[in-house]
Amino acid sequence: MRKITIGVMGPGDNATALDLENAYELGKLIAQQGWVLLTGGRNTGVMDAASKGAKAANGLTVGILPGNNTNNLSEAVDIAIVTDMGNARNNINVLSSDVVIACGMGAGTASEISLAIKNHQRVILLNNNQGSKDFFLTISRNNIFLADTPESAIETAKRIVNNTY
Amino acid sequence: MRKITIGVMGPGDNATALDLENAYELGKLIAQQGWVLLTGGRNTGVMDAASKGAKAANGLTVGILPGNNTNNLSEAVDIAIVTDMGNARNNINVLSSDVVIACGMGAGTASEISLAIKNHQRVILLNNNQGSKDFFLTISRNNIFLADTPESAIETAKRIVNNTY
Amino acid sequence: MRKITIGVMGPGDNATALDLENAYELGKLIAQQGWVLLTGGRNTGVMDAASKGAKAANGLTVGILPGNNTNNLSEAVDIAIVTDMGNARNNINVLSSDVVIACGMGAGTASEISLAIKNHQRVILLNNNQGSKDFFLTISRNNIFLADTPESAIETAKRIVNNTY
Amino acid sequence: MRKITIGVMGPGDNATALDLENAYELGKLIAQQGWVLLTGGRNTGVMDAASKGAKAANGLTVGILPGNNTNNLSEAVDIAIVTDMGNARNNINVLSSDVVIACGMGAGTASEISLAIKNHQRVILLNNNQGSKDFFLTISRNNIFLADTPESAIETAKRIVNNTY
Repeated sequence: MRKITIGVMGPGDNATALDLENAYELGKLIAQQGWVLLTGGRNTGVMDAASKGAKAANGLTVGILPGNNTNNLSEAVDIAIVTDMGNARNNINVLSSDVVIACGMGAGTASEISLAIKNHQRVILLNNNQGSKDFFLTISRNNIFLADTPESAIETAKRIVNNTY
Repeated sequence: MRKITIGVMGPGDNATALDLENAYELGKLIAQQGWVLLTGGRNTGVMDAASKGAKAANGLTVGILPGNNTNNLSEAVDIAIVTDMGNARNNINVLSSDVVIACGMGAGTASEISLAIKNHQRVILLNNNQGSKDFFLTISRNNIFLADTPESAIETAKRIVNNTY
Repeated sequence: MRKITIGVMGPGDNATALDLENAYELGKLIAQQGWVLLTGGRNTGVMDAASKGAKAANGLTVGILPGNNTNNLSEAVDIAIVTDMGNARNNINVLSSDVVIACGMGAGTASEISLAIKNHQRVILLNNNQGSKDFFLTISRNNIFLADTPESAIETAKRIVNNTY
Repeated sequence: MRKITIGVMGPGDNATALDLENAYELGKLIAQQGWVLLTGGRNTGVMDAASKGAKAANGLTVGILPGNNTNNLSEAVDIAIVTDMGNARNNINVLSSDVVIACGMGAGTASEISLAIKNHQRVILLNNNQGSKDFFLTISRNNIFLADTPESAIETAKRIVNNTY
C-alpha cells in the first residue's frame, strides 16, 4: 500500500541559513505525520537538511539523485534512486510527490515548481522571494499555495492530502 | 561539423496571437542566418509557428517530442526526436540549443528557462510578462537577456553565438 | 544511512507460472535479509509477485513506474517513483540496485540486463532460457552470475553485497 | 515534413574492424537513399564511422549524445541532441528511428535492440554473433530481421519503410 510522499525541494549549495532551518523543520514535521520525505538526495542544502530533520523524527527518506552513483548522497537518505538524468530528474521529483514544498529559491527550485505546475501537481511556496510568489501565481491559478512557516506549510499539505482543499 | 542550433520555446495551446506572430518571425530569421531551429516539436502554439517560419525561409527544423510516437508532430518539423519523457524532455530542449529564446510564458516555458539557467545556458526572453523578467533576472545575473522584438532577439543571439557578448 | 537495495526485474504480462513463483520467493528472501526490494512497480507479473513476497515478510518495497501516475501501481509497493520515462526507466531500475536479479526473460528484461552490464552493475540470471544465459555471458565476462533457484540467487547476492565475490 | 530517419547502433570503443567498415558503408547507403542517419553521436566506433560514411555521400546526420555537452561529438554529426541521460538515451535512439540497424554487438547495442523490441520497433541485425541472433529471435517473433551485408540491410530497411514487409 503506497505511502503518502511529500517532496521538499530547494537550493543545494546556495541555500540560506533560514532555508536550512525551515527544511530541517519540514523534514521533522513530515516524518511526524507518518509521511515519506522525498528530496533530490544530495548531501548539501535543503535536500540534506530536510532529510536530517526527517531522520531525527524516525522518518523514512528517499533521495532522487541526478548522477550515476551514490557518491554525493546525503547520509540521512534511506533509499537512493540513481537516475543519471542530471536536472531532468527534477521532473521525477515532482511527479513522485503527493505535494511539493519549495523551500527557498533558485534555478533548480524554479524548474521544479514549473514542472510541478505543468504536471498538474500542487506546490507550496515557503520563501522570502516575493517576485517568485507573484510570478508563479500568474502562471497557475489553482495549484500554488503560499506558506510563511514550516508549520503552516504542513497544515496546507494535510488539507491537500486529505482532499479538503 | 555541428550546425549552430537555436531553440525557440514557448506555450503550446495557450500561446497568444502575438506569441505566434513572434515565433513565426523568429523561425524565419533563424533560418535566414543558416541556423537550425529546435523546438518541442508539437503541432500547436509557438513550436508549430516557429517551425513554419523556418520552413518558409528554407530552414532545417528539429522537434523534440514528449510522447512515444510522432502523432502530434508539427508538419513543419524535418527531424523528429521521440523521447517518451514527457516534460523531462524540456531539459533536452535547452541542453541541445546554443541559445534558447523563450517566446511567451507559461509553466512549460518557465521550466525551460529555469533548466537552461541551471545548465548554464543563455536565454533570451521575448514576452510581455514583466513579472517573469524581473523574477528570472533575480535568479540569474549573467545568462538572462531581454528582447522586445524577434529582430532584437536575433541580434542578441548572434552576439552570443559569436562570443561577443 | 542508505539501505541495501536489490532489484528484481522480469516480465510483466508474459511472466510464466514459474517466474511468478520464483519472484514471490525472491521478494520474501530479500525482505528476510533486511534489504529493500526495488521493481518496475506495476501490478502485473514479476514486479507484482516479488513485491507481494517482500510484503509477506514485512519488507520495504519500491516501484519505479514508467508512466506519469500511480494508476497501475502494484498494491504491494510502499514507495512509488513516478518517472514518466517509459522504458527508459529501466536504466534507473538497474542503477538504483546494488544487485539486479533477472527473473524470467523478455525484451524489457533483456534491456535491463544489458543496461546493467553497460553500467557495470552485477546481474544474476534466474531463468530457463539457455540462449539468453549463453548470450549475456558472451557480452560480459565478469558481471553475469547464474542461479537455478531463488535461494541460490540470494546466496550469490549476499556475496556480492558483502564484497566476497 | 518529417524525413525518414534510420538509426545505426553499435559498439563504441570495442567495435571491430568489420563493424567499422560495415558502419561506414551503411552510413553511405542511408545517405544515398535520401534518409537521415541517426546514431549515438560520439566520436568513436560505429557511431563515428556511420556518420562519416553518410557525410561522404552528402547525407544529414543526427547524434543523440549521452552526456551534458558536445565535447565527444563526432565531427561528422550535423545536429547534436544533448540528453544528459547516460545510457537511458538509448531509448531515444530507437524511438526516433524508422528502422534500427544494429551493426556489431555489445552491452549497449543489446540494450538498444531490446528497447527497440519492447517499443515495437523493427531491428535489422548485422553481425557475426550467432548467439545474439538466436537469442533476439526467441524474444521477438516479428520485429527482428537478419542481414549479412550493409547492402542487404538497406534492402530490408527499404521494404520496412515502404511497408512492403
